[in-house]
Amino acid sequence: MSIYLHDIPLPEAKACLEAALKEANLWRVLGTETIPLDENALGRVLAEPVWAKVSSPHYHASAMDGFAVRAEETGGAQPSSPLLLPCSPAPSLPSSSAQYVDTGDPLPDWANAVIPIENVEALDEKGEITSAIRAPKAIRIRAAVTPWSHVRALGEDIVATQLVLAAGAVLRPVDLGAIAAAGHAEIKVARKPRVAILPTGTELVPIGSELKPGDILEYNSLVMAAQVNGWGGEAVRFPITPDDFEAIVARVQEAARDCDLILLNAGSSAGAEDFSAKVVGKLGVLLVHGVAVRPGHPVILGVIARSREAATKQSPISEEIASGASHPRNDTVPIIGVPGYPVSAALTAEIFVEPMLAKWLGRRPGELPTASAALTRKVASPGGDDDYLRVAVGKVGGKVLAAPLARGAGVITSLVRADGLVVLPRGVQGAEAGEQVTVHLYRSKAEIERTIFCIGSHDMTLDLLAQFLAEHDRRLASANVGSLGGLVALKRGESHLAGSHLLDPETGVYNLSYIRQYLSGVPVKVYGFVGREQGLIVRKGNPKGIKGLGDLTRPEACPAKSPKGEPSRRVQYVNRQRGAGTRVLLDYHLNRSGIAASSIQGYSQEEYTHLGVAAAVASGRADCGLGIPAAAQSLDLDFVPLFQETYQLVIPKVYAESELLAPLFIVINDKDFRAAVAAMPGYNIGEMGKLVAEI
Amino acid sequence: MSIYLHDIPLPEAKACLEAALKEANLWRVLGTETIPLDENALGRVLAEPVWAKVSSPHYHASAMDGFAVRAEETGGAQPSSPLLLPCSPAPSLPSSSAQYVDTGDPLPDWANAVIPIENVEALDEKGEITSAIRAPKAIRIRAAVTPWSHVRALGEDIVATQLVLAAGAVLRPVDLGAIAAAGHAEIKVARKPRVAILPTGTELVPIGSELKPGDILEYNSLVMAAQVNGWGGEAVRFPITPDDFEAIVARVQEAARDCDLILLNAGSSAGAEDFSAKVVGKLGVLLVHGVAVRPGHPVILGVIARSREAATKQSPISEEIASGASHPRNDTVPIIGVPGYPVSAALTAEIFVEPMLAKWLGRRPGELPTASAALTRKVASPGGDDDYLRVAVGKVGGKVLAAPLARGAGVITSLVRADGLVVLPRGVQGAEAGEQVTVHLYRSKAEIERTIFCIGSHDMTLDLLAQFLAEHDRRLASANVGSLGGLVALKRGESHLAGSHLLDPETGVYNLSYIRQYLSGVPVKVYGFVGREQGLIVRKGNPKGIKGLGDLTRPEACPAKSPKGEPSRRVQYVNRQRGAGTRVLLDYHLNRSGIAASSIQGYSQEEYTHLGVAAAVASGRADCGLGIPAAAQSLDLDFVPLFQETYQLVIPKVYAESELLAPLFIVINDKDFRAAVAAMPGYNIGEMGKLVAEI
Repeated sequence: MSIYLHDIPLPEAKACLEAALKEANLWRVLGTETIPLDENALGRVLAEPVWAKVSSPHYHASAMDGFAVRAEETGGAQPSSPLLLPCSPAPSLPSSSAQYVDTGDPLPDWANAVIPIENVEALDEKGEITSAIRAPKAIRIRAAVTPWSHVRALGEDIVATQLVLAAGAVLRPVDLGAIAAAGHAEIKVARKPRVAILPTGTELVPIGSELKPGDILEYNSLVMAAQVNGWGGEAVRFPITPDDFEAIVARVQEAARDCDLILLNAGSSAGAEDFSAKVVGKLGVLLVHGVAVRPGHPVILGVIARSREAATKQSPISEEIASGASHPRNDTVPIIGVPGYPVSAALTAEIFVEPMLAKWLGRRPGELPTASAALTRKVASPGGDDDYLRVAVGKVGGKVLAAPLARGAGVITSLVRADGLVVLPRGVQGAEAGEQVTVHLYRSKAEIERTIFCIGSHDMTLDLLAQFLAEHDRRLASANVGSLGGLVALKRGESHLAGSHLLDPETGVYNLSYIRQYLSGVPVKVYGFVGREQGLIVRKGNPKGIKGLGDLTRPEACPAKSPKGEPSRRVQYVNRQRGAGTRVLLDYHLNRSGIAASSIQGYSQEEYTHLGVAAAVASGRADCGLGIPAAAQSLDLDFVPLFQETYQLVIPKVYAESELLAPLFIVINDKDFRAAVAAMPGYNIGEMGKLVAEI
Repeated sequence: MSIYLHDIPLPEAKACLEAALKEANLWRVLGTETIPLDENALGRVLAEPVWAKVSSPHYHASAMDGFAVRAEETGGAQPSSPLLLPCSPAPSLPSSSAQYVDTGDPLPDWANAVIPIENVEALDEKGEITSAIRAPKAIRIRAAVTPWSHVRALGEDIVATQLVLAAGAVLRPVDLGAIAAAGHAEIKVARKPRVAILPTGTELVPIGSELKPGDILEYNSLVMAAQVNGWGGEAVRFPITPDDFEAIVARVQEAARDCDLILLNAGSSAGAEDFSAKVVGKLGVLLVHGVAVRPGHPVILGVIARSREAATKQSPISEEIASGASHPRNDTVPIIGVPGYPVSAALTAEIFVEPMLAKWLGRRPGELPTASAALTRKVASPGGDDDYLRVAVGKVGGKVLAAPLARGAGVITSLVRADGLVVLPRGVQGAEAGEQVTVHLYRSKAEIERTIFCIGSHDMTLDLLAQFLAEHDRRLASANVGSLGGLVALKRGESHLAGSHLLDPETGVYNLSYIRQYLSGVPVKVYGFVGREQGLIVRKGNPKGIKGLGDLTRPEACPAKSPKGEPSRRVQYVNRQRGAGTRVLLDYHLNRSGIAASSIQGYSQEEYTHLGVAAAVASGRADCGLGIPAAAQSLDLDFVPLFQETYQLVIPKVYAESELLAPLFIVINDKDFRAAVAAMPGYNIGEMGKLVAEI
């Protein structure tokens, strides 16, 4: 076994793990079990081929309700010259020429065809038509039949001894039926590998906890357990272990008693409290520490000895594959140190755990469908890593597009929103806008066909719009690149619509001048969507009594008049970054009110998001900042409404009239949707759906 | 409600059912339940949108181990002119200019950036570099940082109040993580609809039963239960009910107590023992009897009243969607009479049950990916039905091909082998060979890319080959059209290889003359595969002591010499149909031995398969017939080996040298594969893998 302590390329890391598993005789189906053939077998993996024990049908069966006959005796029957065949009510009477059979009945030995009941006249002893169809004296037929008509021949479906399903088949409902038809009541399947998931970290708190700063919700174990179960394994979630070397060692040993794989979550970096590598080193062999993938760098791969207690007691692991001494009970347990960031953790499991489970179950590794798509923007990538880029995928005017999503390893919503993954391989320094890339799709192509691609300024009501569009069989994929970015994307033909709130400080009119400037040559329609309040986010109870922009320039109270201990009346402001729509709005109104920016304390203190402003207020670092009410609400702050901002939808004419976007217009004219928007704090729906301009 | 008693088009049938469900207020999410957010939530369907309760991160968090700083204070730091920042070990001390933070720690209020530890020199009180990295007196930096570098800003991932997931989302592992990150510990999901599955039929026997002629293994309830569970419902399988009107009524009433849907399997035709329609009529309203689909014609759709007992007791149904009086507890239960043939049953469930469950769960109906493919042969279709054709799909020389599989509704293996479905719509009278059709794919496109398409004569060893190829990441799809049909398919470019055993009666040489005649212009390689025994299939113990073809012309023993009761020594033969390879083989050897066909009793009695011959012998209808040992074995008969037949693989040169087929040559030269074939009765592997000819 080779040991790597620095980032190594992914294929090398995988090869190293594979070699170690082979050496430990763990690169194979781990074990099998015989289970009853019932609906719980769905999704299990066949450990051996299924050969038919019986044929199906296991006799020549009538395929219809009708009369069994000898085909040779029907020759010459015609509409104009019918033929009479005598009947016998008793089965297998070789003298009879026709005998009634129900669907599924065995064909009498002497017969080789069935005439369906509807093609027969049943006759009584007098030669009259009778309704006693099951026991007539004779039948009259008006057409000949060929041998084996309306007969399900023995073995038509399955011939005893034939292969019904190959080993490695992941059982589907119809497979279960075929196995039953082949005479089996039990099947041998790969046993489910047990995967221990060990969250570690003093800062971790369980799902649903009240949060203090520094607390981190532990949900990686939930995500990985669901992944493992979905891949056919059996996840065992352990409670949170604090960052304590001995405690982690003890927990790993406990897990090593009867699990097949251990996922040790977080502590895989090289920090002071990152114990994973040391734990693996103490209990076994550290094979790899650091893999050149992004996100997911600090992966640890190792193998440790199974804890002693297990060797003596009967554990699930002991039902090993039954092929004699060549597969002795295994004493080695692979362990993976999984990085702590949620995106890294989920991707590490996809990259390392899924293929291992596939091997242990004897099935093919999962594979995502792929599509070729054009990147909507340039992406930088560290050339040394395989870079896993999450993308939203949509089809705009016949072009399939991939819009890169937030890249942070901590942004789990980037995986939730991702329609697929693009792998920028090692040695490639990013990709240009417009470059064709291969997307591994999380969604079906049909889903992508009904995706409305919305790139521009984000607004909370777009979430609501997405919810309502889903009921109309449309998916809204939105990427937040700001209003101007949205117009540029429209111009480049990379989205179906843009949300925009660009105020022209000269005219006080929204969007139109920008559209004329940036979208020349693209006929667009501009629709009113929402008016949204902007105002000052202030502390709960508004302790400084801030009422408007005028308060931002309050002088420090005269020290003489200010009793000791009374807080300053002066207002500390927090601003948005240059170029932000909210900053433009502030400047426009300061200008209109004749307030000098330089007179505002904190004007140069910049935050990059509405929430950043709210957080600055919540922490006491500022008294107020201009923003939207939802940001105040989300941090339980108060809000002083000041301005109404206009947020419009800009839609190229060709899409405004498309079938794809038709449900959008249904929704924005739907009273339930409007009521839902109006119920959100600070929104006005007076202009919703109105055609503002056609340019 | 309209009532149809004759076949109606599928869309009309669906609309009729939908209308009845709407009238009964059942065309909606049936009910919801709140479940803990754990790994069992995987695959459940959100009944309401998830809005974030908390932001994630819920504070400005350090993204690295390093030092929190004010970005403005780092300006001017350069490799050549480093900057010193004093440190404070205590958090939130506004006077400090740098403070150690671990990954995930809250940023001090005064800070707005983090410098990673590896970009910092930690200094002690003497200004010397120290290893006490967590509590230095000062740090030396050699580059400025921008605000918010290496900081995970509050709400970077999720902003409190934002939409995390829309209602109707089918939960994936990462979705569970995002919901947890948004502050939820429980979720509201659609409750699983309970689907009762009622097999009926006196001829039915449970899976695993010893079979007598006329017995039918009951496995439709297994297939449908697995389907229902896989679609997100909860299947309840009832025991087999015999064909007895009152018994079925009682069983349906029992199921109607606490299930949401009843699937009454078989008895849906119009035969004497088909009670389903009468049962539905007695208990409620028969909406539709007969839908113009094939297979699956005799579908029954109806609604019945929920049994009384349920109205008073607390049942799972009572947790209805909580929206007041507009959703009273429902007293109607839809019921579907599902046809008895297994393919019909499975397709009926796909067509009617899956969309109903989707509606009840609030998710989109499932949809299969589609591909365009060329039909390999002409298909006749009754113009009055939507015709669901099962096809094998492969890609040969760049062309995607769909080979129609066995069409019988009783052939469940046609669903197991199907790579997809082609729907020939009502009003279309079949399709021509070569016609482009849309295939709804059961397999991924990647699977189809690695499919080896083998069309020709079938042999049992191809099953074994399929099993071994699966281990080399290839799928063997084989269609049985006979040897000559296989050569024709090769000529038309519709397969990668053909199995062939065409004996030239003039020369006694296999295949070559036929290849020259039918494959001119296609360079092919012919490989030896197996020698297979043909011989006489005789009754167990060979009571007539048959040793060879000479015995087929035994005269009737002289009556004087034959003691009364001793069976006749004369041999009754059963033949294969004209054109079958086995018939050609017989005639060739009769000719060589100078035996006249007319002297064989039963020469004109024809069966269409090896197994048909074996069945004729087993039933006593014949004493022997020429065939293969596996057919004898599968019906527990004896076998008299006579001839060695040559079964070869014919492969166009272009495919013989392709990467796709490379594993085929690995397998046929693999000793394990050869041993497995040699272990099958009657096979000889002497020629396996030898290049016989290049033409």
